[in-house]
Amino acid sequence: MGVLSRCLLNFAAIMKIVLIGAGNLATHIGGALQRAGHEITQVYSRTIEAAAELAEKLGASHTNCIEMIVRDADVYIFAVTDAALTEIIHEVCNGRENGLMLHTSGSTPMDCFRGMAKRYGVLYPLQTFSKCREIEFTNVPLFIEGCDAQVEREIDLLADGISHNHRHLDSADRRYLHLSAVWACNFVNHCYDIAAGILGQRDIPFDVLLPLIDETAAKVHRLPPNKAQTGPAVRFDENIIRSQAQLMSGDSRLKDLYERMSTSIHQRNKKQQS
Amino acid sequence: MGVLSRCLLNFAAIMKIVLIGAGNLATHIGGALQRAGHEITQVYSRTIEAAAELAEKLGASHTNCIEMIVRDADVYIFAVTDAALTEIIHEVCNGRENGLMLHTSGSTPMDCFRGMAKRYGVLYPLQTFSKCREIEFTNVPLFIEGCDAQVEREIDLLADGISHNHRHLDSADRRYLHLSAVWACNFVNHCYDIAAGILGQRDIPFDVLLPLIDETAAKVHRLPPNKAQTGPAVRFDENIIRSQAQLMSGDSRLKDLYERMSTSIHQRNKKQQS
Repeated sequence: MGVLSRCLLNFAAIMKIVLIGAGNLATHIGGALQRAGHEITQVYSRTIEAAAELAEKLGASHTNCIEMIVRDADVYIFAVTDAALTEIIHEVCNGRENGLMLHTSGSTPMDCFRGMAKRYGVLYPLQTFSKCREIEFTNVPLFIEGCDAQVEREIDLLADGISHNHRHLDSADRRYLHLSAVWACNFVNHCYDIAAGILGQRDIPFDVLLPLIDETAAKVHRLPPNKAQTGPAVRFDENIIRSQAQLMSGDSRLKDLYERMSTSIHQRNKKQQS
Repeated sequence: MGVLSRCLLNFAAIMKIVLIGAGNLATHIGGALQRAGHEITQVYSRTIEAAAELAEKLGASHTNCIEMIVRDADVYIFAVTDAALTEIIHEVCNGRENGLMLHTSGSTPMDCFRGMAKRYGVLYPLQTFSKCREIEFTNVPLFIEGCDAQVEREIDLLADGISHNHRHLDSADRRYLHLSAVWACNFVNHCYDIAAGILGQRDIPFDVLLPLIDETAAKVHRLPPNKAQTGPAVRFDENIIRSQAQLMSGDSRLKDLYERMSTSIHQRNKKQQS
C-alpha cells in the first residue's frame, strides 16, 4: 500500500459521520461504520424517540430538527425512505456544503443531489435489514457511485472499512438491481408468508419448511434458477395445479396469484426450451 | 431399544425394494435407501434409458415393462408424477399383493391404493430434488401415512434409516403441506429466476444477489415471515412501486405479477396490523 493510500485510509478512519434516519438500515450501517473506527457524531430522525434510541447505541447526539444537524461533519448518510429523502434533501444539504452527501437508495438517482451539494454520491447496500437481527456487514454487497472520480475514491475507502464486497454501479443499473432485489427478497419472503398462512390453517408448524427453504436458496449458488426449478408448474401437471388452486379458493387474491405464478413458470420454461 | 424394535430394525435393514420411477426423487430416495443398507432390486421407468441409468448407479436390474417388475419385493416405492401414478397403480399392484406399496406424492391421497393393495401408505419427502445436486437426505423431513398402525410402524422403520426427521401426517393435511411447499420453493425459485432475468438485461451477474437470498432464507429461521418483511411494498412506497412496475413494462405478464405481489404484501400487512 502506497503512502497516499495509507493517508487516505487514515483520513477514512477518522470520519465524523451524521446519520440521517434511524431505521433498520441506519441502525446497521451506523454500527458497521462505528466498528470500522468512524465517529457517528449525530443521528437525525423526524421521530425523536427513534433518533434518541439509535444515538444512545452509537454514543452520538441526536435531533429531530434539521436546523440542529451539525454543520462540520465529514459525511452525511441519508438512510430514509425515498419519499423522505426527496422531502428533506434540500434542507439538509443547505449550509453543509463541505460535507460528503451520500444516499443509500436503490431507486433514487444520484443526481437528486445536483445543485444542492458539491460532493455527493451513493452507497447502496444490497441486503434486507431488520433492527432485531444481527448482520455480518462485511459480507453485504455495496454499490457505489460518486459525482466525480475523487469522490468515488472517498466512497470506496469508506466502503472498504465496512465490507469486503463493493463495486461501482451507475444510477440506471442500480434501479434494475433494486428491482431484482424486490423479487429475490421481498416477494420471496411474501411467498414464505403465504406458505406460513397455509400451514397455519392446518396447525402445521412453519419450521417443517425450513430445510426446503434453505435448499431452494442453496441450489441457486450452483445452478441458474431456471435449471433449479421443480414442482407441478414446471412439469405443467394440470391436475395438481387445478387441485391446489382449489385449496386456495378461500382467498381469491391469493388463488389468483397462485394461478398466475404457475402459468408464469410454465410459460418461461416453454420459452427457454424453444 | 427393546428386542422387538431391534428385530423390526433388522427386518427394515434387509428390505428388497423396487423403485417405480427413475427421476429426481427416485434417484435421491433410492440412494438414501441403499446407503441405509436396503437392497434396491429393480428400477422401473417407462423410458428404458432412465431406468437403466438409475439401475446402474444402484446395482439393480431395470425394466420399462410393468409385467416384468419382480413380484417378491418387500416394498414398491412409486416416485412418479401424480398423473403417471394414477395410470400405472392398478397394473403395478396387481399380482404383487404381498408387497408394501408406498407413494411419495404430496397431493395424492393414500386411498388411491384402496382395493388394489393390502398394505400401503405414503412416504412424502418435503424437499426439492435435482439429479445433479447432492442432498443430505438425513435432514429431509419425511411425512408418513399408513393404511393401519402396523403398516405405519413399518414405514416409520424404513424412514428411520434414511432421515432423522419424520412424522405422521394424513392425506388431507399433506395436500396443504404440498401447496405450502409450492409457495416456499417453486414460486420462490421463480422469483429468483425473474430477478436473474432483470439483472441479465443489464449485464449484472446473478451472484450479487446471493447474500440477500441467503439472508432472506436465514431470517425466517428466527422471525415469522410477516415480521421479516422489508422493502417498498410493505412500506407502501407508491413512487418506487410505480417506477419499478414501469421498468417491467417490457413484459406485461411479469409487470402484472409485480403489481399483484406488491398489493398482496401491502394488504396482508394492513390486515395483520388491524
